[in-house]
This record gives sequence, structure tokens and C-alpha cells, in this order.
Amino acid sequence: MRSVRVGIIGLGNVGSGTLSILTENAEQIAGKLGFRLSVRAVCSRSVHSKELPQLSTDVLKTSDWREVVSHPEVDVVAELVGGTGVAREIIDGAIAHRKSVVTANKELMAQCGAEIWDRAIKARINLAMEASVAGGIPIHAVLREGISGDRVRALYGILNGTCNYILTEIEKRGASFDEVLAEAQRLGYAEADPGMDVDGFDASSKLALLAALAFGHRITPSDIYTEGIRRVTAVDFRYAHQLGHTIRLIGAARETSDGLLLSVRPSLIPQDTILAGVRGSYNAVWVSGHFGGDTFYYGRGAGPHPTGVAIVSDLMRVAREIRCGSPERVSPFAHQRLGDHKPIPVERSHSAYYLRFRVEDGPGIIAKLAGVLSDQKISLDAVLQLPQQNWRDLPFVITVEPTSEQSIRDAIAEISKLHFLLEPPVAMPMEKPL
Amino acid sequence: MRSVRVGIIGLGNVGSGTLSILTENAEQIAGKLGFRLSVRAVCSRSVHSKELPQLSTDVLKTSDWREVVSHPEVDVVAELVGGTGVAREIIDGAIAHRKSVVTANKELMAQCGAEIWDRAIKARINLAMEASVAGGIPIHAVLREGISGDRVRALYGILNGTCNYILTEIEKRGASFDEVLAEAQRLGYAEADPGMDVDGFDASSKLALLAALAFGHRITPSDIYTEGIRRVTAVDFRYAHQLGHTIRLIGAARETSDGLLLSVRPSLIPQDTILAGVRGSYNAVWVSGHFGGDTFYYGRGAGPHPTGVAIVSDLMRVAREIRCGSPERVSPFAHQRLGDHKPIPVERSHSAYYLRFRVEDGPGIIAKLAGVLSDQKISLDAVLQLPQQNWRDLPFVITVEPTSEQSIRDAIAEISKLHFLLEPPVAMPMEKPL
Repeated sequence: MRSVRVGIIGLGNVGSGTLSILTENAEQIAGKLGFRLSVRAVCSRSVHSKELPQLSTDVLKTSDWREVVSHPEVDVVAELVGGTGVAREIIDGAIAHRKSVVTANKELMAQCGAEIWDRAIKARINLAMEASVAGGIPIHAVLREGISGDRVRALYGILNGTCNYILTEIEKRGASFDEVLAEAQRLGYAEADPGMDVDGFDASSKLALLAALAFGHRITPSDIYTEGIRRVTAVDFRYAHQLGHTIRLIGAARETSDGLLLSVRPSLIPQDTILAGVRGSYNAVWVSGHFGGDTFYYGRGAGPHPTGVAIVSDLMRVAREIRCGSPERVSPFAHQRLGDHKPIPVERSHSAYYLRFRVEDGPGIIAKLAGVLSDQKISLDAVLQLPQQNWRDLPFVITVEPTSEQSIRDAIAEISKLHFLLEPPVAMPMEKPL
Repeated sequence: MRSVRVGIIGLGNVGSGTLSILTENAEQIAGKLGFRLSVRAVCSRSVHSKELPQLSTDVLKTSDWREVVSHPEVDVVAELVGGTGVAREIIDGAIAHRKSVVTANKELMAQCGAEIWDRAIKARINLAMEASVAGGIPIHAVLREGISGDRVRALYGILNGTCNYILTEIEKRGASFDEVLAEAQRLGYAEADPGMDVDGFDASSKLALLAALAFGHRITPSDIYTEGIRRVTAVDFRYAHQLGHTIRLIGAARETSDGLLLSVRPSLIPQDTILAGVRGSYNAVWVSGHFGGDTFYYGRGAGPHPTGVAIVSDLMRVAREIRCGSPERVSPFAHQRLGDHKPIPVERSHSAYYLRFRVEDGPGIIAKLAGVLSDQKISLDAVLQLPQQNWRDLPFVITVEPTSEQSIRDAIAEISKLHFLLEPPVAMPMEKPL
């Protein structure tokens, strides 16, 4: 039986991982498909100097991606270059040559995946992007087909491994954000320019994609309220633990009667929830369905091999569609058409909050803060102060009962005017996921 | 666009749940598929007295399943009757009439799913069975397509919600197995005849199916070493906690150099693992892949709606195949052909063990037990005894370093001859999953 032939563009970590899986698992893959998946072309700027797994001599090795997308013997192209520049050209080129496309490109797919899918349908080719979110977790397959009979009510994800690694190290060792970040950079867990990760933008691209699959809406990542983890300290974890909680960077997408509520922000989550057990660089997604109830998915967020598994599984799926002549069988976005949707403003979200203050010590501080909160109709839940410290060194914490983000923001604006504040307060929602 | 038409046979909890999801989610389902999924026939012995969601008047309501499988306007049949008798006839009948089949029937599929799939291929119809294992978790979709690029190294599952409910209640309240079982029966969480659940047979059918998907082998459930939870006591949990562990009924399938090692048995698992966080009637599956590393899936194991989501998601997938004319696109067993495989005997498994003894108090007991273990070349790890109790009331525990199940059995056979034993020792492996 004729094999389906793959062209791989981009031989960095993910590309090399993909290639080694295709080589080492070739027999098992054929046993599942009933035909072979063969590599026909590979492309990288440094293809001739790179050490590659043994490829048969008729495999095209090129540094020009155009030779791959136009190759008459390539059925499906894996775009593993990343970014939104040449990657877009590669995908457009592949579609123009009626090649199916597998991509790991969250940024590009979050920004213009819906248009790319439209073009793919017209060209009658298949488009797959499992690797774009939470590499090692088949969350696209789950939302696209696994639980497609359900309607999603809410989705919470730990979507950035770097942030989760940093947060759990701060938690474990009581170290500072800067210390742990520097160490993560030395170990190669964090980029030299860590902003995309630690400021939450990587997670918001991923959340945009997951929300599209879960809710059927086209979501622009910049419409998602996004806050990073730079202000989370070891002291926050000590207070959170006192409250029976921990802190994670949570990407949340929730259905409300007014529309979708989307945010990426450090949040307190109860320690006895399964989401709180996600430590280190792991990713996880928790889904609440109207009918199926709670489900939870966990695995490696990145890495050449976990992401490579996602790419190879996508290649297998696309290869099946090519063999069956059924390119548009299932949308990569789970829905045939994505509706345009403006998420509702985060100010309208409701939850309990954790508020951390650092102040110049003096009389009547709690009374003043309580007064401002009371003016905003916010009810205090608890006031916490770790022992044997003065307030200058050690911030104290007020938790409040569920209220709107707008009220919290108004209260913080008022509080920030108070003379005894040493820095702007930190506010984190206290979420109640699984 | 013409709809795909469904016939539902069996309107018990799962059938009714399926019907209500198909009705209430009809628009969302059409938005995902691009066409409608319509109910054309329903069948139940009590169909005329049953309260059903509003069905259009042209829906056939019958108490004769033959009318459904032979109905010219039914494209796909959902077999939700269960058991291995009439269910088999229904599936055979549907295949004979070239209808695709969706089933929730773990027992039947574990026993003869591979033959049914062979017949389905020949008839060019589709067969789907997501609901047969861990209803609310799309673990079939995950193994069949989501991580199909990987090779599974090991799979551990909490596959029986009744057992997990009973164990976590014993753990939480210190109650006895009999007490909790009686209560679970009153609440409807356990059957009047609980043997299938508490003796592990339900879990071993499910493990047989998951192992087939994960490893590509046809596994006979009776070849799986199966041990239930009847001997697990509250005291075992107290000792397990002292060891930093908890106890769950674990279905394990592991690749070894000699073949597959399969077992269903109560096992100690470390408390800080994500698997230990699975409480109540939830199910979970942990998968270790050669390339993708650890992934973990969690959700409701049963219930009309979670299982209904699995059925409806399968119906959607099958409907897509019908529309694309691609019935055999993907095997319900993940592999095109299942190899015949005899699991290796459990006696050859290796792990640390927890051994619990109840004895007539007297001198030299530990020395005698240690002597027998030493004769079997088993190294003691720890001896534990809860305080302020005599040994008659309160058993004590010995943990031993990793050894073979065979050595443990030989040691227990010797120990059981000792005059001071009041009951046969209890042995549980100490597993090290995620």
C-alpha cells in the first residue's frame, strides 16, 4: 500500500524530535495506520551540517522551504519553524500547492488560524495543530472529537510550563522570582527574553486557541485580560497556604449569560484540587462540561519528544484523511465555522480576592483599608499577618468575599492614594476549579 | 444537507442520558458537524410507558430491536443494552444490515471486540466504543488518535468508580468495607450484587480494552490477574499514610522485555502523586509513553450524562465517517490488527510490597517472619505498628524492598504455616506511578 509522504520544515528541537519519532516508531505507526508514513523531504537553514537520524538517500534535504511545499511527492507539510513571518508563507505555500499542513505554531494559529482554515477548506486539504497548545497533552483531540458531544461551560488551564516551573520553585524553596528566573534561564527552561512566558502572552495565545475549540468563537489573544507572574513572591505562597490554597498562572475561559469571560492571571486555587497538584514544567487543562461534568488532562507542555508526539499523531490523522479523501472531515477548531466574539470585559468577572499590602506601619491602617473596601460594598473575609515580622518587611493580606473585578479595581485605586502604602497592592482572584 | 440518522437501543440511564444530550445539544452538534444528527428510532422494552424527551412524531418507538437494526432510515445504531447476550445479537444484526455501531458495552467488547471489528471492516461500517471504559474520560480518543504517534510503556488506571468511592470513604471515615458497601448500595452507588465491581472484574474488562488500544494486543480479561478490595481495611490506610501512601484499586498494564504484565489489584501509591488525588467515584488513567512521557486523564467514570457524552461524541465521529464514506479510517482498537498475546504471569512482576499480619501476640514473631523473608532473599524495609494496641486487635505491617511476586507468594505460603498467624497475611504492591 502506498505510503503517505511527509515534508518537515524546521529542524530545531521539535523538528528533530518529530523526525526521531517518525524513524524509531515507523513500524508501530504503520501497524496503526495500515500504511507507512514516510519522510520525503526535510528543510532547515543548516540542513547540511545537522546531525539527523538515518534517512534513506532519496530524502530531499534542502535549506529552501519552497522546494518542500512544491515537491510533487510530498503529501503533507509539517511547519515547525514558528513565528508569524516565514511560517505564514510556508503554510500559505503548502495550501497553494494543495498539501495538507500540520503545525505547532500557536501564535500564528491564534492570530489567523480561522482564515487559514477557510483557505484549507477551499483547497480541500487538511490542517492540524495539536502541538500548538500543551504539546504533550492531546487537548485538541479531546475538544475536537473526544468530548465533542458536550458543551463546555468552563475551561481552566496551566498553559505555560516556564511560569509553572518558576511558581512551584518559589513555592518549594521560598526563593524570589528574579532568583528562580535567572536559574531557569541558566538551565534553559526560560528564554533569555522571558517576557512572552512570564508576562502571560504565551498562555493567552494558547487560551485563545483552546477557547475557540471549546466555545466555537474566534478569539483575539489581545482581547484576553493578561497578567504575568512577576509580582508573585514567596510570601504570597505562605499566605496562600494558610488559606489552604496555592498560586498558579491560570488561563480561564468561562461561559456567562453575557458572553465569554477570558483571563490569564496568577490566581489562588484550593490546594486539595487536582489542578493544584500540577508542579514543575507540566501543563494541565481542566474542562467543565454541561453534561460530562469535570474532566482533567495533564502532561508535558513542551519538549522535543512530547511536542513531537503531537506532531506525529497529527501527521497520522492527516495521512488517514488523505487516504480516505476526506480533508474537511473535522475542523481543527472543532466547529465548522467560528463566530466572532468579543469577550466580556474582565471587570465584570466575580470572585473572592486575595489582596496583599505593604505599608508604612502605623495606627488605624486596617480600619482605613476596611473603610475603603466597605465603601465599595466589598465584604472582608479574613485579615492575615505572618508572625514575628514588622509590616514594612512583611506584607499582610486581606481576603474578601466574592465581588466584581470592577469593585476591586475601584477599591485599589482608592487605596493606592493612601499615604501609608509602600507599593501598589497585589490582587489575585481565588478560583474554585476542580 | 442530509442528516445522519441514529437508532438508539436501550433506554435505561445511559440511553436516556444520550437521548437528552442529542436533543438539548442538537444545534451545537450541527455547528460542529456541519449537518444534523437526528434520532430516527428508539427501542426499549418499556418504550411506550417511558418518559422521553420530546421526539418528533416520525421517530419510531418500538420494543423490538430488530425493527431498529433493519430500519432503512437508520444509519447508525447505538447499542446501550449491555451484557453479552442480546447485545451481541443487536450488534451482529446492525452489522448484517450495514449499519454503523456505537456501543458502551465493555464486557462484550473486551470478550469479542476484535472479531466484531473484523466483521465491521468486511461490512464497511464503523464501530465505536468510547463509552465502554471510563465513561466521562475520552481515553479511547486519546489512545486511538490523540497520542497515537507514541508507543505506550505503561498505563495505570483507576477504572471502577464504585471501588474508588468505597476506598476513599474507608480512608476518610475509618469505616469498614462492609459498612461503606452497604451504604453505597443504599445510595445506589453499588449494585445489589457488588461482585463485578468490588472483586475487580469490571476493572479487568476495562483494562483489557485499554491494553488492547495501548499495546495492540488482544487481551482476554480472564488472563489478567485480578484481586478485589474486600480485604482492605481502615487500618491499612493508617499504615499507608504513615508510609506517605494511599491505597487504590489500580489496573496496571506494563511493557516488559518479556511481554505485557497486567494486573488489577489494590495497591499502595504515593500520596503526592496526581493519581492519589483521585477521590470518590471518579476514574483516571495515567499513561507513560516512550516519547511523550507522562500524561494523565481524569473524569467521571459513569453516570447517564458523562457516559452519554461519550456515546454522542462517538455518534458524531461515526456520522462524519458515514458522510465521508470512510468507515475503516481508524480502528476502534487504535491498531489495524490486534496481535494475540498471553500476558506474562503476574508472579514475574517486581515491586516493593506492603505486608499486613494479624497474629497471636508472643515473643520472637518479627524474628520468625524476618527469617522466612530472608530465606526468600527478600529484604525488609520497615516494620510498622500503630501505638497503644495489642497485636490481636491491630495488625502490624512489614514493608519489603522490591522483589518478585513469586518470592512474596512463596514467603506468604511459608508464613501462613506459622502457628501464631490469625488470618492469612495481606500483600499489596507499592506502585510508583506518576
